[in-house]
Amino acid sequence: MMVLILGAGQLARMLYLESVQLGIEVLAYDVSSSKVVDPVTREPLKWTLREAMDASDVVTVEFEHIDEELLQLAADRGKLRPSKEAILVGGDRVTEKNLLSRLDIPNCRYEVITELDGLTAISERLGSELIVKTSKGGYDGKGQWALNGAADVMRLQETLKQFDLAANPLVVEKKAIFTREVSIIGARSLAGEVAIYALTENIHHDGQLQVAVAPAVGITAGQREQLCRMFERISDALNYVGILAIETFQVGDEFVVNELAPRVHNSGHWTQNGADTSQFEQHMRAILGFPLGATVAAPVAVMVNIIGCASFSRKMLGIPGCHMHWYGKQVRAKRKMGHFNITAPSVHDMADKLTQLQATLPSEHFPKLELAISRLQGN
Amino acid sequence: MMVLILGAGQLARMLYLESVQLGIEVLAYDVSSSKVVDPVTREPLKWTLREAMDASDVVTVEFEHIDEELLQLAADRGKLRPSKEAILVGGDRVTEKNLLSRLDIPNCRYEVITELDGLTAISERLGSELIVKTSKGGYDGKGQWALNGAADVMRLQETLKQFDLAANPLVVEKKAIFTREVSIIGARSLAGEVAIYALTENIHHDGQLQVAVAPAVGITAGQREQLCRMFERISDALNYVGILAIETFQVGDEFVVNELAPRVHNSGHWTQNGADTSQFEQHMRAILGFPLGATVAAPVAVMVNIIGCASFSRKMLGIPGCHMHWYGKQVRAKRKMGHFNITAPSVHDMADKLTQLQATLPSEHFPKLELAISRLQGN
Repeated sequence: MMVLILGAGQLARMLYLESVQLGIEVLAYDVSSSKVVDPVTREPLKWTLREAMDASDVVTVEFEHIDEELLQLAADRGKLRPSKEAILVGGDRVTEKNLLSRLDIPNCRYEVITELDGLTAISERLGSELIVKTSKGGYDGKGQWALNGAADVMRLQETLKQFDLAANPLVVEKKAIFTREVSIIGARSLAGEVAIYALTENIHHDGQLQVAVAPAVGITAGQREQLCRMFERISDALNYVGILAIETFQVGDEFVVNELAPRVHNSGHWTQNGADTSQFEQHMRAILGFPLGATVAAPVAVMVNIIGCASFSRKMLGIPGCHMHWYGKQVRAKRKMGHFNITAPSVHDMADKLTQLQATLPSEHFPKLELAISRLQGN
Repeated sequence: MMVLILGAGQLARMLYLESVQLGIEVLAYDVSSSKVVDPVTREPLKWTLREAMDASDVVTVEFEHIDEELLQLAADRGKLRPSKEAILVGGDRVTEKNLLSRLDIPNCRYEVITELDGLTAISERLGSELIVKTSKGGYDGKGQWALNGAADVMRLQETLKQFDLAANPLVVEKKAIFTREVSIIGARSLAGEVAIYALTENIHHDGQLQVAVAPAVGITAGQREQLCRMFERISDALNYVGILAIETFQVGDEFVVNELAPRVHNSGHWTQNGADTSQFEQHMRAILGFPLGATVAAPVAVMVNIIGCASFSRKMLGIPGCHMHWYGKQVRAKRKMGHFNITAPSVHDMADKLTQLQATLPSEHFPKLELAISRLQGN
């Protein structure tokens, strides 16, 4: 069997690495070079896009900002999993907001605008603290602005002067006062079976995920139940197939949905070493129509992103349960280069291990390790 | 960093899959085609052997029956890990027997012969039940004969008439009356650190490993201790670097060494899903001079080889903890095509899971599953 992945970054690479064992051939389509490439080396292969689509049994995506025409090509062949509609929900914030409203799922109060003038009036309705997001194309803090007051509004109006809001409207949200971000990573199979991993707390810096902790500390059984039902309602509504990530904000004891990602997700990387079946194998099982694997997990698992740096010793590999995952990219500021996964039998043991990890790393590139340690210590 | 593996079978493929995450490039040298190939697709790459050796930081092996000249090429560059001497101990039964005798490590009584006439006289000293093995080139039951009486001796003398015993002597062993085979899989790092996995019971059929169970049922703490000391003495004596597998026979409460394999080993495949660090990642960590990973394991892990068959449903993937590993080879009788790994919280749960697995498979290709189940049930 063969699978074509639209997108050729680290997610395609990690999907590939867990497909080989299942006996699946995997090709990746690099949307920036418009070439079919080897998912590991990223070297061009002798396939045109159409040849690769025709030869593949299933076409899937590693990110949601894919040209609709490209998705349509795969959908026309009946091979796209998840569906075009599901991918577009993740790739277009207006569609996403509409779905959440329709399902009556809590999310941040918002309005959609297609003219910059609208921004001023919205402040009067939603308050002065706003988050403005382009409906399409935003990720890792890009295409997203925090506003606080009239001066910010004017500055953004200036920035977006040339922007085509008719084609790419803005979603303006009331800034949520949340205590943390928790993501729900799960899979839905072709047969409609759902398997959800331990809930994950995500710690960000400058718009990028730095550390993910699973299970998120202090989630009650009732809260998990509530979030799992939310996952089922959303994934059922989309007739979803594959791994779906739902980012939520915890506001008091409640959770409001921030974003949906119709793919394997950075906050689920811990499953490679911390769960019986990794999200990458699970995604492949789902889209190929195989049974889903077990999601049973280590008592505590943590993922630490390696961002913008490549020079460090390999000493941390001596910490029991510590593994490295490297993406093979040229180093660049703010670029995700790889990640560490660590498992531990208890939160206290994990705090110790993260302290050891911190000692082996250039601290300026890991600004949130301290906070993660303190969170695990119950502070 | 780059590693060249001598040999391009499934072991090279699985070593590759766990090297990518460490940021290591891996090439494989196919000794039958004399080509440097991609370890997964086995497609020839644009490297000559010498170019690949020069470009690599480390050269290692996936099997021990490698031309001494080829090993010497890598050794001359100071890049061969484990060493040529260590690899030859596994590839030559006479050298192996000499090492075990020198270290005073229990092994089957034996004699070495270079003339076929010697066979008759040996029966008088070791008894009529003998195992005859070529010193070089034997594996999976090939190059190995069981004798019981004068007729067998004469038949073998006829079979081996054209055989050059001066170049490839025979090791003749007194047949051991053993209750089972137990293997010790462990790693020794460049710094001399040793990490040993749970001991594994191996169940064979027709000279091929069928099922491996870890930990081997009923091993006492004292026996494990004894076998771990044996591993340390052998690996220290060889100044070994990488994964080493030691096959032993249990005779009463004692263990005698059957064979050494200087490489990742079929009886250690369960570590992919059953241990914190798989034997493949561990081998790479060792030969690259990284710290060894944790060997902590699932309460019970079982590996089931898929031999000579490729047509079956994927239903078994729904058994919690069941994973498939496929080698991407053309199906052929007696060929290892892939394996299943299963983990479970208890031996009884594992017996149930193997019973479920059995129901999804063509039973004629899995003749020892029944025995494995019965062993787990304490029968």
